[in-house]
Amino acid sequence: MYQLANCPRDQLPTLVRRLLHRIATLVIVVTCLQSTTDPTFSGESADTQGRPNIVLILADDLGYGDLGCYGHPTIRTPNLDRMAAEGMRLMQFYSAAPVCTPSRAALLTGRLAIRSGLCSDKRRVLFPASTGGLPAEEVTLAEALQARGYATACVGKWHLGHLRKYLPTRNGFDHYFGLPYSNDMHGAPVNDSGGVSQPLPLFRDESVIESEPDQKLLTERYTTEAVGFIRDSTGATPRKAFFLYLPYTMPHVPLAVSDKFAGRSPRGLYGDAVETIDWSVGQILATLRGAKIADNTLVIFTSDNGPWLTRRLNGGSAGLLRDGKGSTWEGGMREPCIAWWPGNVAAGTTSQAIGSTLDLFPTIVKLAGGKLPTNRELDGYDISQVLQGKDARGPRDEMFYYRDASVFAVRKGPWKLHLTTQTGYGGQPTVHNPPLLFHLERDPGESFDVAKDHADVVAELKKLIDEHRRTVKPGPSQLE
Amino acid sequence: MYQLANCPRDQLPTLVRRLLHRIATLVIVVTCLQSTTDPTFSGESADTQGRPNIVLILADDLGYGDLGCYGHPTIRTPNLDRMAAEGMRLMQFYSAAPVCTPSRAALLTGRLAIRSGLCSDKRRVLFPASTGGLPAEEVTLAEALQARGYATACVGKWHLGHLRKYLPTRNGFDHYFGLPYSNDMHGAPVNDSGGVSQPLPLFRDESVIESEPDQKLLTERYTTEAVGFIRDSTGATPRKAFFLYLPYTMPHVPLAVSDKFAGRSPRGLYGDAVETIDWSVGQILATLRGAKIADNTLVIFTSDNGPWLTRRLNGGSAGLLRDGKGSTWEGGMREPCIAWWPGNVAAGTTSQAIGSTLDLFPTIVKLAGGKLPTNRELDGYDISQVLQGKDARGPRDEMFYYRDASVFAVRKGPWKLHLTTQTGYGGQPTVHNPPLLFHLERDPGESFDVAKDHADVVAELKKLIDEHRRTVKPGPSQLE
Repeated sequence: MYQLANCPRDQLPTLVRRLLHRIATLVIVVTCLQSTTDPTFSGESADTQGRPNIVLILADDLGYGDLGCYGHPTIRTPNLDRMAAEGMRLMQFYSAAPVCTPSRAALLTGRLAIRSGLCSDKRRVLFPASTGGLPAEEVTLAEALQARGYATACVGKWHLGHLRKYLPTRNGFDHYFGLPYSNDMHGAPVNDSGGVSQPLPLFRDESVIESEPDQKLLTERYTTEAVGFIRDSTGATPRKAFFLYLPYTMPHVPLAVSDKFAGRSPRGLYGDAVETIDWSVGQILATLRGAKIADNTLVIFTSDNGPWLTRRLNGGSAGLLRDGKGSTWEGGMREPCIAWWPGNVAAGTTSQAIGSTLDLFPTIVKLAGGKLPTNRELDGYDISQVLQGKDARGPRDEMFYYRDASVFAVRKGPWKLHLTTQTGYGGQPTVHNPPLLFHLERDPGESFDVAKDHADVVAELKKLIDEHRRTVKPGPSQLE
Repeated sequence: MYQLANCPRDQLPTLVRRLLHRIATLVIVVTCLQSTTDPTFSGESADTQGRPNIVLILADDLGYGDLGCYGHPTIRTPNLDRMAAEGMRLMQFYSAAPVCTPSRAALLTGRLAIRSGLCSDKRRVLFPASTGGLPAEEVTLAEALQARGYATACVGKWHLGHLRKYLPTRNGFDHYFGLPYSNDMHGAPVNDSGGVSQPLPLFRDESVIESEPDQKLLTERYTTEAVGFIRDSTGATPRKAFFLYLPYTMPHVPLAVSDKFAGRSPRGLYGDAVETIDWSVGQILATLRGAKIADNTLVIFTSDNGPWLTRRLNGGSAGLLRDGKGSTWEGGMREPCIAWWPGNVAAGTTSQAIGSTLDLFPTIVKLAGGKLPTNRELDGYDISQVLQGKDARGPRDEMFYYRDASVFAVRKGPWKLHLTTQTGYGGQPTVHNPPLLFHLERDPGESFDVAKDHADVVAELKKLIDEHRRTVKPGPSQLE
């Protein structure tokens, strides 16, 4: 059925193709989620009353230290600060990769990118000339929620494949509006309709609606789309739960902001871009409050990877953490993460539980009343008890730090072992023998190697990496 | 009269001495503050109804990045986070010196320590063998408030002279309980009653009540004293406004915490010490709420200088700022600062106004209805409009960064010029010719020297330092 949906697309009317694809997706997801035993499960027409809406907001290249509520002195984020004051800040929360494509693959599947082939030691991310993408057999969070009856939309940057068969609309999203990859990628072929070189495209669903859209307006346009989607979903009869995935293009370089925000932040253009995002989040939360669905909507705000330090003042800050984007030092992968769900997530709290974007898939699927696929390895944990303040340490005890397709480091409890280190972008890898060991909770800045005092911990963590390498099954690379 | 109060102390009963001292102080303060034109002014018996109570809390060696609400991942400070959520975080707030004694001299007088002689290029702070201290002719915040009828207490570490004539009780405080200097100072003569060597003393008023008190209990004992003072003041008839100065001994090394807090913080002993302070601040705020005087009490929380980085994990973190204690890089002098005054300071706000501990003297004196002394140079600005959300940028445009008795750097607006830099403790000074220039609001981490692109700014800031050096009048050194 997938072949039917994907192959003869030039002959079939769009509507028929999308219908077939939807049916195929449902079949796969129903099988994977084994949700048929759930009496409330009835696919798209499910009564979703009582299930929480989900808004998953992802900034691009925003560092751990770039929000007011994470200590930045001159980037003013009153809306995110308020979101934090009304919700929970997670202080040890990680993206699953230090660069864009593998990070997003893991976020949407709950699986390390190595499993879906969305990482490679040769190419770090998908480029316009790439022909790979998220394999159809992966179950995305959107597919899982769509199968539970959610209305779904992706508004923003995708970066998991830009051939038609890889677009958000083929991965569980009813709607898509945004860029297919990063905003600094231009000029190479962008779809499989031919070899025509095309500038940076803006998509609506499966159509390119603009070339080289004015990037100054992107965050505001995304906001309009996102707010419209929320309003449409809440206005439907019967009201459907919705899943909004809002991966902003900013503050990834080239930075661009509208006249309204230009020159506003003391932090300069980078601050203007983050403050625009802050405004946008404020609009989203105000829309939820206005629709009186705040207490039935979980909103998560995080980032795909750390700050792009080589861009100097056009890149962000990892705060007290070491290094940034591209690196397996903490600054490359530890992110701000704010969870907001009035009445369910206690106001003004912090959590020191280790969390990861990998955990959002199982957490959210469970909150939506779904079941997790059992026919594949998942790398996430259900952290709903953490969010609800019932589990201070959380279910996650370990974290693998991948640089591309290689495990460079591992965390277990407070300990982190580096086998290899390499500065975010550029430089050569340094293999450490003996490895470096840091106690991340006492020494979050990774300043004091304590390997020689803790030979037992070093041995245990090396073994953990060995086991992981031995057992993880890499998917065929999509990046080459 | 001061001579009468200070000299024949061995012959006069304590009560008489203190009475004489009180009268002498009042005469000086009344003259200095020129408050006699204020019809409400009537010295100690003033009706202080309507004047805000002041609680000024100072941590010792706490860095910019050491609180949850300033982004620390594993130091849990729910009470300070709540204080911030109910009040204002100042994000560009400075101590007036990167080490203890000059920082405290400036805090309590509103004047750079160079003016009172509480800094020196030879000795950085007062030591047990020192015989100097805050000169009697300096007007402290406590003296100014005492003259306005406030009940006053100093609970904690003093470090502005430990001969009797320099004690808090001789500087405007009705009550004193605490250590006369740092908790790592032992063994040398501590008072002027003779040459007897004495271990670390704990004072009540002017008496040493214990030698080598158990440092594990200090923060809790300070808390008991502070809460008691608040209760006594609010229970008085007629109710008197009060000024509580609460300079904790922690988290200065040697770190020590009670059994209740030991091993509690994921950050280790340093975190335990900060979390004890957080608990203590929670007790103070709860006492204010319980007495229903929260909306008439301004509470300020800040630190005397940046983190003592050479103490490694026993020192704190400056977050994204460079270097720490002892240094004129931002990490040495920029501090967390939380202002709390329900109904007057808006909840959950941040300010990017440049502020300094130097500003607390004029700000608080004005809030107390007093007038500022005109017979001396003051280095502070009234920032009450900043705290009340009426002035986003604030009155302060420049900051001089003293290392001991030397100006190493200056800030004007967003620009900071370093003539000399030196790592916090140890190392040699590096004179920069040309100087280094950083745009602190875009580059708070002082990573990108932009001097060669801004020759005009360099020239302007050099001139500012030249003028300051030419006009500032150093007081006789008290540290040698």
